[in-house]
Formats: sequence, C-alpha cells, structure tokens
Amino acid sequence: MSENLKKVKPKILSGFMELLPHEQINFNKMIDTIRASYERFGFNPIDTATIELSEVLLAKAGGETEKQVYRFNKGDNDLTLRFDLTVPLARYVAQNLNEIKFPFKRYQIGKVFRGERPQRGRFREFYQCDIDIIGDGSLNILHDAEIPSIISYTFKALGFNNFTVKINNRKVLNGFFQGLDLQEQASEILKNIDKLEKIGLDNVKDQLVKLGLCEVKIGEILKFITISGEVKEVIDQLEAIKSNNDLYKQGVEELKTVTRYIKEFGMSKENFTIDLTIARGLDYYTGTVYETILNDYPQIGSVCSGGRYDNLASHYTDKKLPGVGISIGLSRLYYQLNEIGLFEGNSQTISKVMIAPMSEDLSYAITIAKTLRENQINTELNYSGKNLKVKMKYANKIGVEYIIIIGEEEEQTGILTLKNMKTGEQIKENINKLVEILK
Amino acid sequence: MSENLKKVKPKILSGFMELLPHEQINFNKMIDTIRASYERFGFNPIDTATIELSEVLLAKAGGETEKQVYRFNKGDNDLTLRFDLTVPLARYVAQNLNEIKFPFKRYQIGKVFRGERPQRGRFREFYQCDIDIIGDGSLNILHDAEIPSIISYTFKALGFNNFTVKINNRKVLNGFFQGLDLQEQASEILKNIDKLEKIGLDNVKDQLVKLGLCEVKIGEILKFITISGEVKEVIDQLEAIKSNNDLYKQGVEELKTVTRYIKEFGMSKENFTIDLTIARGLDYYTGTVYETILNDYPQIGSVCSGGRYDNLASHYTDKKLPGVGISIGLSRLYYQLNEIGLFEGNSQTISKVMIAPMSEDLSYAITIAKTLRENQINTELNYSGKNLKVKMKYANKIGVEYIIIIGEEEEQTGILTLKNMKTGEQIKENINKLVEILK
Repeated sequence: MSENLKKVKPKILSGFMELLPHEQINFNKMIDTIRASYERFGFNPIDTATIELSEVLLAKAGGETEKQVYRFNKGDNDLTLRFDLTVPLARYVAQNLNEIKFPFKRYQIGKVFRGERPQRGRFREFYQCDIDIIGDGSLNILHDAEIPSIISYTFKALGFNNFTVKINNRKVLNGFFQGLDLQEQASEILKNIDKLEKIGLDNVKDQLVKLGLCEVKIGEILKFITISGEVKEVIDQLEAIKSNNDLYKQGVEELKTVTRYIKEFGMSKENFTIDLTIARGLDYYTGTVYETILNDYPQIGSVCSGGRYDNLASHYTDKKLPGVGISIGLSRLYYQLNEIGLFEGNSQTISKVMIAPMSEDLSYAITIAKTLRENQINTELNYSGKNLKVKMKYANKIGVEYIIIIGEEEEQTGILTLKNMKTGEQIKENINKLVEILK
Repeated sequence: MSENLKKVKPKILSGFMELLPHEQINFNKMIDTIRASYERFGFNPIDTATIELSEVLLAKAGGETEKQVYRFNKGDNDLTLRFDLTVPLARYVAQNLNEIKFPFKRYQIGKVFRGERPQRGRFREFYQCDIDIIGDGSLNILHDAEIPSIISYTFKALGFNNFTVKINNRKVLNGFFQGLDLQEQASEILKNIDKLEKIGLDNVKDQLVKLGLCEVKIGEILKFITISGEVKEVIDQLEAIKSNNDLYKQGVEELKTVTRYIKEFGMSKENFTIDLTIARGLDYYTGTVYETILNDYPQIGSVCSGGRYDNLASHYTDKKLPGVGISIGLSRLYYQLNEIGLFEGNSQTISKVMIAPMSEDLSYAITIAKTLRENQINTELNYSGKNLKVKMKYANKIGVEYIIIIGEEEEQTGILTLKNMKTGEQIKENINKLVEILK
C-alpha cells in the first residue's frame, strides 16, 4: 500500500444522507422510539431483502416507479433495489402464507431506494418505518380506528404533543363522485383535490374547469371538499348530502364507526379531525386514509400517512388480503426537524462519562470503567497521554457530560471526583455512590 | 386491480436470508445486545450509504472483490453496493476529517452485499457489526488490549461464557519470515498457515514444499506455528527464538504489552490465548490480530475477528490513520446458532400479553390495553369476534405468554384474570397489580 498513490476524492452521490456521529445519535433515538412504539402495540418485526428479483418486485409497478428504481443485472438475474416496504410486504406475505398468523401485524424499519433527482429534504436512499395489519379474507374496521392512537403514541414519544391526525375515507370520496356520475374522472379530480392546501381553492377550481367539468358539478365538489368543523358536524353534513350511492353511504358509516372508536382509543379531540380533501394519491387505498401534521411545523407536510386497502397481494396470490397501514418517512422527517434546529443542545456522544487516568498504571482506571459498564453506563476510557489539558480538551470536543479524573490519590483513597462538564460542578464520592448518581 | 391477472410467483433470489417474525425477534435481540455492548465502551454510531460511487468504493479493490460486487449504472453514475463496512469507514473518515474527533471510535451495524455463489450459511446480503478506533497519526496500543474485553463483554451479553479470543501479531509473523529471508513468500505462507486448523499440519507442510521452501526452513516454520501453552509460556518461547529481526522483536514486545493489559481489562485466563497460526488473510492488518471461537460450537469457526492496521484510508488522504477494529458477521452467526437449535423455546411474538374482549363494547378493554402500553408492556388487542375458542387458538398460534379475558363481570368488578398460556396458571387481580406482575 504505497503512500504515493494518486488519491481518490472521498465522496458519495448527492441525495444520500450521511450523518456525523452526534447527528446519528439523534436519528437512532428516533428509530428506537418508533420501534418501541410499534412493538408496544403488538407489531412483530420483519426485515425483507434489499435486493429483489425485478419480475417479482415490479409485477405491479409501472410508469414513474419503473423509471425511479435502481435496476441491474448480476449473472442471469434481473434485480431491483426495493423502492418501498409495501411491495416487499405483499411478496413476503404471499410467499409465507402458511407460516403467517392472521391478522398479521408487522413492522419494518429500513432503507428504500429511489433514483429520482434529489431535492432539498428528498433523498435517493431513505428510511421508512411501516406498520401494517393484514387480514385473511377480512379485517375488522376497529384496526382502522386503532391506527390514529398508534400515531399519537408514537409522536408523543418522539416529543410532539401538538399534532393532528387527519382522517378521510376513499369510499366517501369515490361514492360522492359516482353520485355525480364522475367516476371516470374521479382519480384525476382526486389528484387536484389532494393539492388543495398547496395551491388553494381557486387553482383547484381552475384545474377542474380544465378537466371539462360543468359548473354545477364543480360547485358540488367545492362545497363537499370545504365541509369542515368538529367530527360530529362533518359527519352530520356528510349525512345531509342526499346521495343514493351505496359506496358513499358505506363510506360515511365507516367514517362514523372509525371516528367513534378513535375516541375510545383515547385520542383527544385536538389530535384528530376529518379532512375530506385527503385522498392519498395511491390507487390502492380503498377505505380509511390518514395524514398527520405537526401543527407547529406545518411546512413539513404529512409526517405519517397511510390507509386501508382491499387487497395487498393480488399480483402474487388468489387469497384476498385486506389491510391497513401507515408509514413514517424518517429520513425526510429527521432532516426537516434538524433544519428547524430541534436537536440543538442534545448530547454529542454515546458516552455518559469519560475516565481520564493520570497515572502510568491503568489498572485502577480500568476497574472503574468496568464497574461503570457493568452498571449499564456508557463509558469511554481515554488513554491519550498524561496531559490533563489534552484530555479535557478532548472531553469538551466530544461533548461528554461527565468526566472522572483518576490519579494516585484517587487510587489510594477510593474517593473519586465526578465533574459535570457543562456546569463545572464537582462531586467527590466513592464509585458506588457515583454509579447511583450517573444512573 | 383485476383479480384475474396472471399471478407472479412470490420469491426472492437464493442466498438472501429472510426470517419469519418469531425468528426476526431473536435476530433483532442479538443486534440490540451487540449495539448496547459497543455503546457501553463509548463507540458512536454511523450509518454510511448503501450505494457508493464505484470509483471511490473500488479505489483499492481488485480481483475477487471486483467480481463479487453488485455494480451498475444509473444515469451517468457508475455505482456499487457496499461489500463491507471498512472501505465505507475509510471513505467516511477521509471525507469528514475536519468534523471527526480523534481517536474516532465508531460502530456500524448494517447490511453488506456480495454477489458470490451462495453456500450453506453464507449469504449474498448479510449483516456486519463493526467497531473501529481510528487514531490521528498514532494510536495507543492499549486500544488493542481493550478489544478482547469488548469481545468478551459482547459474547457474555449474548449468552456465551465459554469462548476463546485468539490473539496474534502480524509483526511477529512478518518479522519471523523476514528472519528466514522468506519475506517474498510470506503472504503465500501465511495463507497456508491460516488453514492449519482446517487442513492439518501435514497438509500445511505439503503446501510449503510446493512453494519451494527448503526442509530446514519448513522445520523452523512448523516449530514456530506449533508453539503453544499459557500466554507466558508462549511469550517465553517467542523470546527464546534468537531473531535479529527488529520487526519480530517489536511484535513480541507488542504481544507482551497487549496480553498483559488484556488481563488488566478483566479478561479471565480461560477466555484468551495466543495462537501463532492466526494471520487473518487480509493484507492490511499490520499488528495485533484477533479471532474468537465459541468453544461449545467450534464448527462455526471464528465469530468475531479483526486487528490493527497502520493506515485506514491511504487511497483517500495523505493523513496517516492507524486503527484497530473487529467485526461480527451476524447473519452467518445467527444462521449457525439457529441450526444448532439455540433459539428453541424463545418467545414467538413481540407482545407480552393479549387482551381478549368478550363484550360488544370495547371501551373497557381499550382502557386496559392503554394502561398496559403506558407501562411499557407490549400488548395486542384482539378483535376477532366474540368466540373465546377462536381467540385462544390465535393466542396459542402466535405464542403469546399471557392473555387477559375481559367480559362484563371484569368490567363491573375491575378484577381481571391473567392467564399464563404455558402453565395454565391464572391470577385474579386489579390492573395495577397485573401491571406489577407483568413488569
């Protein structure tokens, strides 16, 4: 390995988020919190392959998805990196039908890959944190009602109390458009409605005119999507619409049941609302849909979305597998929260305490480190010479909270000095007392 | 989404490990344990990109590595999936030189990808769990001595007490061969010595004859590699070899220091040994090298290996960055332990308790679930109808430890029945008492 080799510039492709260790600590805490929350509600972990067979992974995909994926050949195999965690779930469930117990509650937290043009806060490699509940043939609608309480538990655990889970039902939307005899244009109309918050009511109206809708129907649509108020008021207004469409009626009934049980699951009124403009672009949602807004940071957009689908894996199996699920796009969320400055002042290192041994013989310092570690206290032992200034400078640089300086006197008396690096406060105690304090 | 579409067979490429949820729970516990152990010793997390630029990632690679990698083009970019966590570490350190604090202690746990022919227990996509300590210009040899205590802490936490960390020093090996004027053939000879345990002494001898070595030198080599005994005895024998080679002498000194401090770090004699046959094929190790054997399962081979290197990132920077590190190949280890049957009888689901509500109104059952979850008890709420038999069957299938049946009586009295599904034992108490028991 010659030192005279021409150096290669160390870099990565743009659109990939790589964090410094002190940032990674914050990111990992978010993952840990989300995972603990998902487990609390009885979701079991799976971890599907990163590389899938293209013919399997792309069985359903088309258009935009096909263009974005990382697809390549290796030997005789046509392979693609997973671009979400939903298609792999469908494949996994269909593949393991006999081993899986239904209702199947799984979570998966992992990276997905999309070769799109990177933008601020959008990444080509990013973490998704998904839960889904899959039924065998049918799935109780109460699962739809439990989802918002999981979102609530999760975001409270992440430190956010001021959020709103927005709920809608695709049957209400689709039924409404069927009632207006607009089922053909429904998906185009929904796409525009979905943009309401971004582009405003007038622009949505213009778009609907462009689609060739008559003024009367546009009026009905605009009246419908601007229905608002408390949950009960919205339901009342929805019921007041005299629609003979069965899908619509069924949708309103579902929305009633779901919102009633959401309350029973302990969600407070302030944390959820019905929003009839939410459609969730994806074609496969067929019932309840969710979006979640952090009210103090509305510019972030939805931080947790999802919904109910009739059939998870129709491309892989004849078995009908209805489900409901949500996803948190963690890399984007972390990036936005970090930009806002929410992680400032957090600890900079995984270690709670650094031990600074000042004598030649490290035996005693090692014993102290061992004791701390055995008591689940993350401990760094610093060997960098005997210069206390150098050690203190390093401790400051890594941002460790406490240091313990160990010299000959400490070794003889067993009384150690614990110094808080932020406040400068010093405590002199034996190791057992210090363990108690640090715990 | 038509149900009449031709179905695609759901499958993945061979050589990819995908687990069922109850297996994934065990796998994740191992990851959690390893991570906690690495953090205990003050290693900070990083998470490098999965996809790297080929010109950067493969700057140093050649031959076998190049053949194995997953390499592909996307747009104008020539990309490769990471094949280990060491090259990305080198690139990351060189890229972030100004932000990193040295000595830089990092861990990374993540998947790496190698498109080799899959074999039993060898995977194309697998987890590595790495720690490294990188110095800026120099790195205290005490870090070499601390490594075995980290291995020890980790494997004890994983439930293994009967293991041996085998230690050697590349300077001893290289110096020894220089002393025999065999430096040119050293790397070929080391490759054969590395296989000693697999192929036996006679075969190693044959291989050395094939390399064209004279009988005297082969005799010296075989005498050398069969040196054994307690650490002190081995050191004595190494010192007894009258070598004028400086590298050799330096290596023996290092081995002396490292093994002395290993003891100070609290390793018991039974858990480490000097093994002069360990060379760790890789060219970049230059000092201490490690292998770890689970003595009850020697057939698994080394479960944790690594060593000291002079310069981590010479392809990316002029800065000299010596380091020492180890890696656990977790997917392979899990696979082998699972084959041995070590996870049998472990819990089958993430939930500690399942609630079985028997009345129409779920409000009370939901309150109980909420209380359990707020007390960090993973809880599944079962909605599948009112048939107790169906619920019990499901509870048995998912393997949950406890169930709480909630009917009208329970709702009125507040006295709940907690049933242990394994023993059949039942306890009647209020929810606060049950929380205490379940915690």
